[in-house]
Amino acid sequence: MNNILDKINNVNDLKKMPFGELNQLAKELREFLVDKISKTGGHLASNLGVVELTLSLYKTFDIDKDKIVWDVGHQTYIHKILTGRRDKFNTLRQYKGISGFPKRCESKYDIFETGHSSTSISAALGMARARDLNNEDHNVIAVIGDGSLTGGMALEALNDVGDRKTNLIIILNDNQMSIAKNVGGVSTYLSKLRLDPKYNKFKNEFNETLRKTNFGSSVAESIRKIKSGIKQIVVPGMFFEDMGIKYLGPIDGHNIKEVTKVLALAKSIKGPVIIHTITKKGKGYKFAEKNSEKFHAISVFNKHTGKVDKKNVNTYSKAFGNEMMNLASKNKKIVAITAAMRDGTGLRDFSEEFKDRFFDVGIAEQHAVTLATGMAQAGLKPVFAVYSTFLQRAYDQVIHDICQQNLPVILAVDRAGIVGNDGETHQGVFDISYLSHMPNMTIMSPKCIEELKYMLRWAVEQNFPIAIRYPRGGESSDLKLKPLTNFKKGKWEVLYKEGNIAIIAVGKMVQTALKAREKMKAQGIELTVINANFIKPIDVNLLNYLITNNYKIVTIEDNVKIGGLGTMVLDYANLSDKKVKILNLGYDDKFISHGSVDILYKTNKLDVDGIIESIVKII
Amino acid sequence: MNNILDKINNVNDLKKMPFGELNQLAKELREFLVDKISKTGGHLASNLGVVELTLSLYKTFDIDKDKIVWDVGHQTYIHKILTGRRDKFNTLRQYKGISGFPKRCESKYDIFETGHSSTSISAALGMARARDLNNEDHNVIAVIGDGSLTGGMALEALNDVGDRKTNLIIILNDNQMSIAKNVGGVSTYLSKLRLDPKYNKFKNEFNETLRKTNFGSSVAESIRKIKSGIKQIVVPGMFFEDMGIKYLGPIDGHNIKEVTKVLALAKSIKGPVIIHTITKKGKGYKFAEKNSEKFHAISVFNKHTGKVDKKNVNTYSKAFGNEMMNLASKNKKIVAITAAMRDGTGLRDFSEEFKDRFFDVGIAEQHAVTLATGMAQAGLKPVFAVYSTFLQRAYDQVIHDICQQNLPVILAVDRAGIVGNDGETHQGVFDISYLSHMPNMTIMSPKCIEELKYMLRWAVEQNFPIAIRYPRGGESSDLKLKPLTNFKKGKWEVLYKEGNIAIIAVGKMVQTALKAREKMKAQGIELTVINANFIKPIDVNLLNYLITNNYKIVTIEDNVKIGGLGTMVLDYANLSDKKVKILNLGYDDKFISHGSVDILYKTNKLDVDGIIESIVKII
Repeated sequence: MNNILDKINNVNDLKKMPFGELNQLAKELREFLVDKISKTGGHLASNLGVVELTLSLYKTFDIDKDKIVWDVGHQTYIHKILTGRRDKFNTLRQYKGISGFPKRCESKYDIFETGHSSTSISAALGMARARDLNNEDHNVIAVIGDGSLTGGMALEALNDVGDRKTNLIIILNDNQMSIAKNVGGVSTYLSKLRLDPKYNKFKNEFNETLRKTNFGSSVAESIRKIKSGIKQIVVPGMFFEDMGIKYLGPIDGHNIKEVTKVLALAKSIKGPVIIHTITKKGKGYKFAEKNSEKFHAISVFNKHTGKVDKKNVNTYSKAFGNEMMNLASKNKKIVAITAAMRDGTGLRDFSEEFKDRFFDVGIAEQHAVTLATGMAQAGLKPVFAVYSTFLQRAYDQVIHDICQQNLPVILAVDRAGIVGNDGETHQGVFDISYLSHMPNMTIMSPKCIEELKYMLRWAVEQNFPIAIRYPRGGESSDLKLKPLTNFKKGKWEVLYKEGNIAIIAVGKMVQTALKAREKMKAQGIELTVINANFIKPIDVNLLNYLITNNYKIVTIEDNVKIGGLGTMVLDYANLSDKKVKILNLGYDDKFISHGSVDILYKTNKLDVDGIIESIVKII
Repeated sequence: MNNILDKINNVNDLKKMPFGELNQLAKELREFLVDKISKTGGHLASNLGVVELTLSLYKTFDIDKDKIVWDVGHQTYIHKILTGRRDKFNTLRQYKGISGFPKRCESKYDIFETGHSSTSISAALGMARARDLNNEDHNVIAVIGDGSLTGGMALEALNDVGDRKTNLIIILNDNQMSIAKNVGGVSTYLSKLRLDPKYNKFKNEFNETLRKTNFGSSVAESIRKIKSGIKQIVVPGMFFEDMGIKYLGPIDGHNIKEVTKVLALAKSIKGPVIIHTITKKGKGYKFAEKNSEKFHAISVFNKHTGKVDKKNVNTYSKAFGNEMMNLASKNKKIVAITAAMRDGTGLRDFSEEFKDRFFDVGIAEQHAVTLATGMAQAGLKPVFAVYSTFLQRAYDQVIHDICQQNLPVILAVDRAGIVGNDGETHQGVFDISYLSHMPNMTIMSPKCIEELKYMLRWAVEQNFPIAIRYPRGGESSDLKLKPLTNFKKGKWEVLYKEGNIAIIAVGKMVQTALKAREKMKAQGIELTVINANFIKPIDVNLLNYLITNNYKIVTIEDNVKIGGLGTMVLDYANLSDKKVKILNLGYDDKFISHGSVDILYKTNKLDVDGIIESIVKII
């Protein structure tokens, strides 16, 4: 029973709502969130942390005109609830349901799509500059977490923000977290702002000034008073001030009254302003407050106990982490690097066991890659574990630092292929295409979890750059595959040699190919199945054999077709004088929305039946 | 006659050299530089600026053991002269000669290759952490310009540097420049450090402390004294201090005595240190001091007058800049963005004429792309002019912000293809491969300078993302080509329809193809020549025609073959049941070193004769 929430039909209803009701609404929103997400899964903790911030923003600003850009975007559930999508929350992150991130096609209030970290200040600054050139006068606001502030492009943007006197409000949502605890100098600095008694003194003075200011009465007079007070108020955030950005705060991000007052103040200031709000991730739901990392992105859970149905499945990430422990215990040169994804990449145990050899660099993939290259230059064996979609951030560094110098950095490319519910911004479907045209790069992919271990073991013994890509989650439990335990660069594994149609499959697609083979065999059609454990270089000897012996070739990869393994096979076959029948399966040239992995495979015809359907056509 | 320079056979000779001789050596090095570069061309101003800094580093450190990473690397000429390559300076940047950047294959003292900005702190930090894990005890130093500090990854690295107490010396070579004058908050901040009387007071105290410290006598005692003094000295660089990095400076980077003292001090400090040195780009050569931008990267010039033989050739960049002026005068929505490459991209006039609509964001390609996307969201027509090789830095933002939202940002991709003397790190030979697998992206390339103008004119009228790639420099003067003046998405231009071999060429390669056609025609072989003005989407109608009519197809692109236009043509032809004879010409899967553009085309068989040779083979 949500007495207030149920009555909101328009986000502008918030404008006239008294603070008492807003606080009640915040409570109802939290209950709504916990209830809904316990049934669908999703990003819980970050949304619980921005309830009051969102209400304050929508009370203060006119979102039919003003523009708010949410960094990363996984904290926009409150925004979605308040902008007409309350009734769709049971479809959250599901195929054809509402997305867990802002989507322009979903609502006119989702003005800018985010997903990867640290883009909001750049985008908002672009909008603010456009506003000025268009002679418009609305407000532009970027909401960015302290974690996102460690991403290089956020700092590039801050540097540029300071360059002109563009009106722009940056809300720094400081919960001392990215997904896990933050690291690095920026974080240390923000902590200082929070804790230093000198800063707290300023904070008190600041609040005092705010209290004295009566926003209800003559606005012009109030603003005049405030402005004369700003000089005194604006002192603590030296870093931001030095960059030419006015600093307000720190303030309690859960106090709607305080936040709305400061927002009103920020509106009245000419030039860029940063408002430092302190919030608590998971706020108001005890289990999430206690363990915000667990509740960052959570699957279905029991809202009364906070417990998730532990399936305890074996995942690629877990196997990677375990093998890293094993290898590191034998080889002192092995070090692990993550960009704020310690747990996601399976490196928690490693980080505890090999504290000195574990490096979490913050949300900073570019730095991570070149740091690794520096380590490799100095004789270490760095392994950078990173999601496929986030490695996109370091495309240049992989070419320019790793590949050009041909240094033995290992990229453990996790979440390669379809990742599912996070949708467009998180699918790892480009990595084969962006890595394969890099000179000196070797790309591998294991057909099963166990094989990943041997692959990693082999990789740390080599002396050149290697990327190993592997999918999110685990594997089909109904297939028992024997892992390859040794590797020869560019040599593929023939799993079944039957019939004159050869399936060349990558990684997880090998399992799908094997199932397709069984099913087709039952129908009397035989398939040769090849595990392309090396995506680059390709196995030209085996390809020669297939071509010479008139095989039809089908390539299958969990990647876009353009620039994928299929094109490399095609390139090679093109050298022959024969017409080789080749069918390349993978993703078409479009973005792939959210939904369960199984549904997405099916709709993209990369499930068993889809593959069979395609193969049958070429017979 | 270089009395001192000629006598140096080993960089360690500097160690025992008195300051008077070092200053004389600095003078001789400057004369050597000006003399040599006036004959070969190269990066002059930045090298003139680091003469004393380099000498001080090599006097202080043991470069057989200590590691120095030079950011960008175009300022390593002094380093090269002092490490055994003095006699090779007449081959600078020439094919098979010494590179203008550090190259590991060239000298054991070139420990890390650079070329793109802002990588040095990451690399050096990696080496420093490796040193600690390896239980070694040498020094690691990163030398980075203030311009490079605006690149996001440098700030990511600074954030990480502050995280552990790793010993690392960062030399901030502050000349208030990147290639042109610096912009943004970081620059403002550094200026404050230089000019604020408070800071100058600290500087004086700092120098006083240094003067009192006698490095010659008991070292242990001196260090103790210094350490007790550090607390007092280390104050002004609040930004760096707040990040957990000790700040020393600002000091005069042309005073060898002062710099060596501060370096010795930095060596004795535990944890990361930043030394802020003030230098003058172009120092000691009056023409370069006056116009350091002109002398940043200069072609052959008269050393007595500072004048370059003006060929006054028409370049793609110039035409781009002119057409931007023309379009902007008619359409108020058009804005231009550059990442510290205003002049290089031809935007100088635009920046003066349309001050409000011109945005130089510093060395910050990631931010530039997302800023442009924000502007496009708000109804502007942003054109981001960027070199092909530097756009690599924003690969993720092009996918995630521009393409996913399908917003009409125009990427003017300058220096696409071989750029010549700058070598591996600057060749623009990957852009077709990295852009073509991005959904929603349209890629174009003009066959001649005039066509670029019409292409741009067409592009600003469209409502989707467009990348226009064009080469460095101008075009063959012996061909008069009629530009296409209108475009239909995905429609190619047939220039000659003769014979059954069809050349499908991209951009500048069209001109080469036309010359090959003439030459072959003289030998009685006819060629059909097609201008693939759209690289994506390809012209499937025309391809259908060619395939149906049994043409042999040759694709030519100034890009690596993997993931290039050739593979897209191949993909399409593969759908046919026919064996289509296709030959894809482009670059092999390796990095392309420095040398003149013509030589590089020749060695890669993309000159007229090379192309003919390849074509003849398939006849």
